[in-house]
Amino acid sequence: MSKGLPKRSEDYAQWYNELVKKADLAENSAVRGCMIIKPYGYSIWEKMQRQLDDMFKETGHSNAYFPLFIPKSYLSKEADHVEGFAKECAVVTHYRLKNDENGKGVVVDPDAKLEEELIVRPTSETIIWNTYKNWVQSYRDLPLLINQWANVVRWEMRTRLFLRTAEFLWQEGHTAHATKQEALDETVQMINIYSEFAEEYMALPVIKGIKSESERFAGALETYCIEGLMQDGKALQAGTSHFLGQNFAKAFDVKFTAKDGKQDFVWGTSWGVSTRLIGALIMAHSDDEGLVLPPKLAPIQVVIVPIYKTEEDRNNIAKVANELRASLKKKHISVNFDNRDTHKPGFKFAEWELKGVPLRIAIGPRDLENGTVELARRDTKEKQTVNIEGIDQVIEDTLDKIQINIYDKAKAFRTENTHQVDTYEEFKDILENKAGFVSAHWDGTAETEDRIKEETKATIRCIPLDAKEEAGTCIYSGKPSNKRVLFAKAY
Amino acid sequence: MSKGLPKRSEDYAQWYNELVKKADLAENSAVRGCMIIKPYGYSIWEKMQRQLDDMFKETGHSNAYFPLFIPKSYLSKEADHVEGFAKECAVVTHYRLKNDENGKGVVVDPDAKLEEELIVRPTSETIIWNTYKNWVQSYRDLPLLINQWANVVRWEMRTRLFLRTAEFLWQEGHTAHATKQEALDETVQMINIYSEFAEEYMALPVIKGIKSESERFAGALETYCIEGLMQDGKALQAGTSHFLGQNFAKAFDVKFTAKDGKQDFVWGTSWGVSTRLIGALIMAHSDDEGLVLPPKLAPIQVVIVPIYKTEEDRNNIAKVANELRASLKKKHISVNFDNRDTHKPGFKFAEWELKGVPLRIAIGPRDLENGTVELARRDTKEKQTVNIEGIDQVIEDTLDKIQINIYDKAKAFRTENTHQVDTYEEFKDILENKAGFVSAHWDGTAETEDRIKEETKATIRCIPLDAKEEAGTCIYSGKPSNKRVLFAKAY
Repeated sequence: MSKGLPKRSEDYAQWYNELVKKADLAENSAVRGCMIIKPYGYSIWEKMQRQLDDMFKETGHSNAYFPLFIPKSYLSKEADHVEGFAKECAVVTHYRLKNDENGKGVVVDPDAKLEEELIVRPTSETIIWNTYKNWVQSYRDLPLLINQWANVVRWEMRTRLFLRTAEFLWQEGHTAHATKQEALDETVQMINIYSEFAEEYMALPVIKGIKSESERFAGALETYCIEGLMQDGKALQAGTSHFLGQNFAKAFDVKFTAKDGKQDFVWGTSWGVSTRLIGALIMAHSDDEGLVLPPKLAPIQVVIVPIYKTEEDRNNIAKVANELRASLKKKHISVNFDNRDTHKPGFKFAEWELKGVPLRIAIGPRDLENGTVELARRDTKEKQTVNIEGIDQVIEDTLDKIQINIYDKAKAFRTENTHQVDTYEEFKDILENKAGFVSAHWDGTAETEDRIKEETKATIRCIPLDAKEEAGTCIYSGKPSNKRVLFAKAY
Repeated sequence: MSKGLPKRSEDYAQWYNELVKKADLAENSAVRGCMIIKPYGYSIWEKMQRQLDDMFKETGHSNAYFPLFIPKSYLSKEADHVEGFAKECAVVTHYRLKNDENGKGVVVDPDAKLEEELIVRPTSETIIWNTYKNWVQSYRDLPLLINQWANVVRWEMRTRLFLRTAEFLWQEGHTAHATKQEALDETVQMINIYSEFAEEYMALPVIKGIKSESERFAGALETYCIEGLMQDGKALQAGTSHFLGQNFAKAFDVKFTAKDGKQDFVWGTSWGVSTRLIGALIMAHSDDEGLVLPPKLAPIQVVIVPIYKTEEDRNNIAKVANELRASLKKKHISVNFDNRDTHKPGFKFAEWELKGVPLRIAIGPRDLENGTVELARRDTKEKQTVNIEGIDQVIEDTLDKIQINIYDKAKAFRTENTHQVDTYEEFKDILENKAGFVSAHWDGTAETEDRIKEETKATIRCIPLDAKEEAGTCIYSGKPSNKRVLFAKAY
């Protein structure tokens, strides 16, 4: 098959768009800004979900489901929250259609107007905290550790598949606690889980940090985030965990009686990751030949392609391939035996490269004679001839190596593209000519942050959790600073 | 704990409503008709999902995700479809809120009106077939075997938790085929999968059949269904599988080139089950003490309650309980060790009865001496003293027995409550005084069906697939009939 992908070096944005479509991950729908996640793309999401869900449950969380719709007035109850979301809400105003009097199609029935308009949830803090009010009376009812897998809608004007869509799929955790410290611990625990997931499963090295005030979630006192670096040198926020303080408890009057009999407002957190992670996965690792998927999230980990001229060879190879598939299945390795007779091996090789299958096994008649197969790695493109005997272990080990190699490569890229600067000139030079993360001193004011953003399009991605105390001066204002923060242009 | 449940015999409807709430399954939300599925209820849904998803995948289906919103005009493209759904559609008309000029809250921004209104999907045939148009060119692209797990909205005026809610969760399969026969086979395969799921996992005996024309899905040529009988003698439709013929292919112009080079419209099916199944599960098996859950879908299969007076006893019991839990975990049996010190054993017994945990193990100091535990079944309320040695196997076997017993009990109930009648007098008498399924001859006309419904509130639940050819006369019109159909009042 002809891939026809643009090269990353020539047009990174176009490369991404084309890759998402050609690898059958997703496409645009007839509804503006809403995507269709195709089976291959969705199966990556399922792998992500399964892993994250296990991690949430291991830390004591349960899943639940809250309504898609939020009464309009709820949004206004937390001042910052409504400010953050009102401008991108899909609004339901009617509940019925009727036949058009001209006999053509249907129209909205004006008699079926809702008394109060409903918002399609952009996030569920308001409807959930309104519910928590009834679930919490005493400290015995706390903590509430709840997660929801759901679709949400934010009416974005400029959308891109996976990265920014009007509707997206995500999980949103919403927890309620008796003490501030417990809520803070939960916030940190969840950003650590996200970080572990990104690094161990997505093979994506991330920086953990906290957001500056301007970049905080609308309604939070503190937002923790993980930030990854894409191959074009732009940052991508891959997950956030918010310490909500008592903001939503106050907005929705959620109080509890403590052990000592005193009443207090509950402390809250919320945290989420979305189908955006699929965008990050693609952008971080893939190449001009197509997707490069880390084995732990690849829907197909191994593909077997038979190479034959005669029907007899085909049958003999199929026998070996099916045995191999069965024995790998026992090791929970997912295998596709591509025995289609409608396509040639070269076409198949290209297709599975495009789709990012980590390991390809080719078996020809000579291999049968020699008791070998050809093993090809997607990440390094290395090929080697391997004995069939004992190959299970070789495959298992190679998949582990691929997982590590993809991570190491992304990490080396990030190291190369993280720059420490001390002047605004250097700062601008890097953002214009090299991109990547820029570590610099900042005076801590929103004003400076805004100016820098205006002048360079770079934003503060985060104040890294491991940032050291270091006396310095703000690159923009020259005012004193005691910590470097991380700037970048971002998705 | 005091359960305070109404008795089924006194007020079945109220018993159901109270049970759903008291067992922490679900509750009504602030949004009319939309429910909140609480963690315990959602964990039953997760078990259902996991099992069904495995069954779908084993039969070659993949998951994907299509937009929540459907352009209004799409709905009109299939005439019966729009007729069926237009009257209960939530309609999005705007995409932004703005601050109210009076400074109080937010209002819909009139400048942000959509050019074409969007419907919140009541089902996804239209948006999916509009997509399939681009996915199908040749017979090589077929079949498309796709499923979606999603939320849908139907603006119901009278709602009941799980059974009928404005928003509900479901799966909807949408397949496309090159031949009529293949689509018909798929339709039947999926109703068989639903039937297997209902009987093997939900322990719910169901009748497989096809719907009469009036009860068919809007846009289908044939609707297959499974119908279960609830304890109040009402029927509940638990799943449907629709043969769509070429209706949606024609409405959305989905054509393919066959092997012989000829163009034809694609053949389609769709099939779904929803969170309604949780309602069926409750109504079919539970009793005046609370839920009775079949072990295969119970979130907690075994609960261990310690009975102690001293802290020393408590510690000794905990040791045994934790060992038992660990060894059951290896057998994939889910166990909760309820070691709370805040509640007495009697309270705990009642709580876990209410929540339908199939097996309860009580361990007291004397049990420790004797090397025994007390095992209590939720379904039969039988108790027995069992040696701890070898108890794993006893528990596993007992769970199997419970699963079978719950099914057998429901099946016996259905047999008792299925009546064969030959006159309209008998028919009315049964529906008034006994309820249940009524097997009777019908002349095959919608007119007779409507009259019977008007006069008795009973509908034709289905024409059973295993109905025998049998000459008879319609109970209502006296016209000839060659098959009995199944009537009942229904949820």
